[in-house]
Formats: sequence, structure tokens, C-alpha cells
Amino acid sequence: MDGYSRFASKRTTLFRASEIRELLKLTEGKDIISLAGGLPDPRVFDERLKDITSRILEDQRDLALQYSPTAGVTEFRKTLIEFTRDKGVKLGPEDDVIVTTGSQESLYLIARVLVDPGDIVIIEEPTYLAAANVFREHGAVFKAIPIDHDGMKTEILEERLRQLKSEGKKPKLAYLVPTCQNPSGSTMTQERRKHLIELAEQYDFLIIEDDPYSFFTFEPLQFDYLKTLDPNYRVLYVSTFSKILAPGLRIGWTIAHKDLVRYIELAKQTVDLHSSTLSQYIAMEAIKKGIVEDTIERARILYKEKRDAMMEALEEHMSSLATWTKPVGGFFTMVYLNVDLDTKALVNEAVTKYKVAYVPGESFFPVTKKKNTMRLNFSYPPPEKIREGVKRIATLVKEKIKA
Amino acid sequence: MDGYSRFASKRTTLFRASEIRELLKLTEGKDIISLAGGLPDPRVFDERLKDITSRILEDQRDLALQYSPTAGVTEFRKTLIEFTRDKGVKLGPEDDVIVTTGSQESLYLIARVLVDPGDIVIIEEPTYLAAANVFREHGAVFKAIPIDHDGMKTEILEERLRQLKSEGKKPKLAYLVPTCQNPSGSTMTQERRKHLIELAEQYDFLIIEDDPYSFFTFEPLQFDYLKTLDPNYRVLYVSTFSKILAPGLRIGWTIAHKDLVRYIELAKQTVDLHSSTLSQYIAMEAIKKGIVEDTIERARILYKEKRDAMMEALEEHMSSLATWTKPVGGFFTMVYLNVDLDTKALVNEAVTKYKVAYVPGESFFPVTKKKNTMRLNFSYPPPEKIREGVKRIATLVKEKIKA
Repeated sequence: MDGYSRFASKRTTLFRASEIRELLKLTEGKDIISLAGGLPDPRVFDERLKDITSRILEDQRDLALQYSPTAGVTEFRKTLIEFTRDKGVKLGPEDDVIVTTGSQESLYLIARVLVDPGDIVIIEEPTYLAAANVFREHGAVFKAIPIDHDGMKTEILEERLRQLKSEGKKPKLAYLVPTCQNPSGSTMTQERRKHLIELAEQYDFLIIEDDPYSFFTFEPLQFDYLKTLDPNYRVLYVSTFSKILAPGLRIGWTIAHKDLVRYIELAKQTVDLHSSTLSQYIAMEAIKKGIVEDTIERARILYKEKRDAMMEALEEHMSSLATWTKPVGGFFTMVYLNVDLDTKALVNEAVTKYKVAYVPGESFFPVTKKKNTMRLNFSYPPPEKIREGVKRIATLVKEKIKA
Repeated sequence: MDGYSRFASKRTTLFRASEIRELLKLTEGKDIISLAGGLPDPRVFDERLKDITSRILEDQRDLALQYSPTAGVTEFRKTLIEFTRDKGVKLGPEDDVIVTTGSQESLYLIARVLVDPGDIVIIEEPTYLAAANVFREHGAVFKAIPIDHDGMKTEILEERLRQLKSEGKKPKLAYLVPTCQNPSGSTMTQERRKHLIELAEQYDFLIIEDDPYSFFTFEPLQFDYLKTLDPNYRVLYVSTFSKILAPGLRIGWTIAHKDLVRYIELAKQTVDLHSSTLSQYIAMEAIKKGIVEDTIERARILYKEKRDAMMEALEEHMSSLATWTKPVGGFFTMVYLNVDLDTKALVNEAVTKYKVAYVPGESFFPVTKKKNTMRLNFSYPPPEKIREGVKRIATLVKEKIKA
């Protein structure tokens, strides 16, 4: 904090600049193929958002521009409950919903309400970086459980829980993206989901089911949401409109037992009073008018095509150099190099010499810090850029292996 | 937290339901005159917001609906710096700006970056409740300095600082609404402003200048912003579009030394990634198209009329019962009863029997807890309701004095 360090709170020592956001600054406005971002393709944004927004500002201006309740606009909250149910998430009579400023704020508020320094939080490895940052800032101690194509390896989780118990410890929380995982694109099997819920019961911890991608999987998948399988309100279900409508609205939501929601609401009151009322009205109308459903269908088709382009390019250029995850949804694949190269040490050269950007994978492994990995995004660049970008990365890796 | 208390973080013990928000729930949809709220009159909202929003969603849809930088949309940040300067706030070359989800989030993030448990925070008494809640949640210890019609009594502040120093203590931060104070409507004199800045230099603390109301004072006022008088970047200037455009957009901003802004940005990354991109585009266009200026002029005229109605009604009905502040701006007056009545104990009867709501003043005095006070709002109700509401409160107070 330079000249202000004598004023800085102790928690600022836990702050980290998001490597991804820093990297994006580096590539901004330059002729670089970026596989580093995580943006939706704006072609999924719906033209009719203009019309419904006009209609809202014509008919309900006084409400849509006014302060609104901390937990969210009442009618919107009802709409969200129905929407979530319609998507196959089984809710109980004690469940309630709160609207947040993107799902990021959901994760932040949940951590604020639940996590004290030293608390054990179970995460997947690799995991969603921005979630890991939230828990780390709250002083969480991570227990990282590896995932494969079938999601978190719950047999390893069980071992770790047994071990923790023998040390007199227990985790407070498990954070997962069980469906179309970020950043691997894998989806947890039904068996592992049931096993996870059993373990939560047996070892008494809560579960965050972070679910930004499950509404547009690239193939039909058979699974129950963790929330559906949850008999005793241990699951906090978190989702967002960022991928199924527009991230710029900053609207996410959490569904959990009403006692938990009430605490999240109290925390939110001091953080930002409430989320954009106008954005809430837009999202509500977009659900009611079928715009969200249409956006979901566009997303499914567009991102599947791009996923395919990336898988083909990886197959063509990288098959002798690496393995990678086969996403059934989401925006990313995680690439594991066969050789022991530190991708972080290479990224500047990738950007400046090879005109291609990726995110070094290390930070997605908060515990094991796998350095020979990279996260590649396929949602934003057009297919031809994806192919060219992967080719350039392959060239870089080959050069380095030779050197 | 009922069934979940074993999972609750320690900080949840510091959470408080906002009394105002709870009270508002009580009066919702009932035939009650509420002088308890703090809403802008929707008649100040500008019709043209519909047109500029349509234009944004026509011409810049891909940007306005997309993720955007944590510190705010780049062009909007430039616009905000110019706008703030145009309003007479002198900025230095090291100042930078960050966009937040309402000014509430500015206050929250500043506390997160600066305040550790036990840190001393100087506040005005009475003070803005939602700000006090933020600091209390971060474990601040309050030193409350009384205010009068000329703002914080800095001679008392100086005494307190001397005393603290003799105890080997020093404050980290002073929080003030120096212009059109919330909830008293008073404005700090130029002399006291200069004195405050001198004290900050001498005793080495930072200052939050919270400034939601100064752009529409009811009479022309002569003052320099604290930020203007600040030679060494000790002032964090905080403002919002909630009163000069629309609160439902949830857009506020903070201007401070770039090192401080950088830390606030890091904190914001994990809280909500960024504030609504669409809201930022709307606020930017509203500045550029003169809509904000027009809103400010409407606010000045409308709220002055309502302030006058409230002052007249208080004069007519309460002059033998109480004294009150004479707001030169803002949304509120603080009423001090001449007798020792606990207004909190009366509020339920006020609502049920007299069909009028106010906010008991006690919580605006986090240290001295003055119980015989109430905060009255004049921005939202029409003048005739203001008059009738004050009359009803007077009737209640007279009844209680007799009893």
C-alpha cells in the first residue's frame, strides 16, 4: 500500500491481484489471440433486451429505478425460485432465495457468514480461482481433492475426512462446481454426488453447489443437482445470469435454508444495500418472456461448436505434448503438459513473441500448485482463432522442449 | 443462526438488522404515513433515461452487457473525474477513481481495506447509520464527536485527540458527511473544515468525506470540499448517483490517492468482480446528456419545498415539545424531544394507533444512545403527508407527556 501501509488492515496481506485480470490488461487492444479470458460470446446476448428494458422504464420506472429490498425484488425472488425448480433443482419448504451482485457476491457473502480464519474448506483441484480467492481472504485452510472426468474423487475425500477426524478436525464447508466444472469442464457422476452428500451428513459440513453452466451442457447429461439430493439443507445452491443472459447486469442468486439466507441478507446490507433494481427487473422479464431460454439454446449451440474446435485443435497440435480435460459444458479446458515446464514463466514470451495468451494453471491448484498446466478458454474467441491460438501454444511448447 | 450456529463465523455476532429496513417492512403496503424511509421522490427520476438506455442497448450492446474492469468502465471513470471536478472538488495528480455498487460498497470496501478490530474511528453524532454499521462490523471502536448546525465540533475533536494521544492511542480514520449531513442536514463551516484537515495532519489519520447531497443544497452555500482542502491525500471522497439520478442503478464512486484506490480495487475483485456495466453506461450517458444536471435541479426545487413543509409543520405542532435541526440539504431532520421519552418504545404505538412512522434516533448515536430523538424524512412523502405526519407525531408525544 506504499505510502499508506501504516493504515492498511491486516487482511490486506491476504489480497492477491487476480492473475487473469492482470493478464487481460496485458493483452487489451493488442493483436493477440487470447485464450486467457472467460467472457461469454456477445452473440448470445439477446436483441430483445433493448425492448424489455424500454418497456420496464416506460411502465415501471418508479420501481425499477428506486431502492429495493436487500434480499431482492420480491416478485423477482418468486420468479427465481420457480425458474430454479423448472431447471430441475428440487427445493424444500425451508429454502429461500437471495439476489446478489453476480454469483461472485454470493460466494463472498457465504464466506463472510461462515468462514473464520483457520476454518477448513474443501475444494476441488483444479478449482475456480475467484472462489478460492474469496475463501483465502477469509483465512480458510484448503483441503484440495483431485478431480477427474467424473468430478471430485469422493473416495479420496472420504480418506481425508477420516484423517482429519483422527486429528480432531472437521471441515466447515465444501466448495464445488459439480456440473461443467470450472476450469475442467468435468461433471460429477450421480454416485459421487450421493457419496458427497452422505459424507456431508456423516462429517457434518455444508456444501456450496456453484452452478453457472449446467443449463447449457453440450450433450444431454443425467444427474441430480446436489441440492436435489440434499435431505437436510446442507447445500447452498449458487447460480448466475452471467452466462445465460448477460454478465454486465451483475445478477446472481443463492438458494439455501432460510436461516442461512437471512444471515447472508444481513451481511449484504452493509456490503451494498441491494443489487441493481433495474438489472433485477430486466432478468425477471427475460425469464418471463422466454429470452433466458433462447439465450441458453444459443449458448449451447455456439459454445459446443467452439468446444469442438478447441478439442480438434488440441488433438491436432498437442496430442504428443499434453493431455487435457474434455468439457461437457462451461467455457474452459485445463491442459496438462507431459513435460515439466512452468507455464507461468512462459506466458510473457507467449504474449510478446507468439501473440497468444493463456492462463498459467498454477493458481487453479491452490494447494498442489501444478506448474505445467494452463487454462484455455473457448467461449469468447471465434473457432478459427481458437485453432490458430492452440497451434501457437503448441509451437511455443515444442520450442521450449527442444531448448 | 438457529440450526446453523455451529457453522457461523465469529463476525456474525457483530451483524445487526438495520432498524430502518425492519421498520419499513412493518409499514409496507399499509395506510401509514411514513416519515421513516430515506427514498428519493421518484418524480426526480428523468424520463429520458428510457431513451438513453435504449440507445446504449442499440449501439453498444456487446459492451454494456459484458463483464467490465473491476475499477469501472474506463471511459466512465474519466467522466466521473471530470464530473467531480466540475462540481468544485479539487483533485490532485495522484488521485484516482473507483466505481462501486452504490456508495454503500465504497464505505464497505474502505473499511475492509483500512479497519482492523480495535481501530479507532471518529464519527459524528448523530451519524449515518449504515456507515456506522459497516465500521462496527469491522470491529471499529467509535469516538463520537457532537455536531451542531455548523457540523462537527472540531474543538471537541481536538480535545479528544489530545486525550487519546496521552493514552498512547491514535485514530485511523474519521468518517463525516460534512455537507448536508445525514441525518441532521447541517453543513460544516469552512473554519471547521480547515481545522479538521489540520488535525488529520497533526494526528495522522485519514478522512472519509461522504458526499451524497452537496450537489443540491436548498440555499447557496460557501464551502470547500474536504478533498479540496487536503494537501496530502488524506481524504477519500465518496459519492453516489442515488440522489442525483436513481438509486436502483447502484452506482457510487470513491476518489482517493491511487495507492488507496488500488487496494479498494483488490478488495472489490473478490466482493463482486465489478458493478453493473449497464448501470455505468447509463450514468455516463446521463452525465454527458445533461440529465444528471436536470435531475439535480428538480431535486433542489422539490426537496426544498418538502423541507419547508416539514419545518413549518414542526414549528406549528412541535415547538413546545422539541428542537430539531434545520437542514440546508439532504433528506432528513433530527428531532430532539424536550422530555425524556424513549422514542423506540413508542414506535409500535405510533405505527398501529397513530398511523405514522419515524425512525427512533438512538441508533444514530452509536456511543451516547440518545433515546429521546427521532429521524424524520421529508424527501419521499408529499408535503400534505409531511404536515399530517408531523401533527400525528406531536399528538403522540403530547399524549405520552400527559400520561
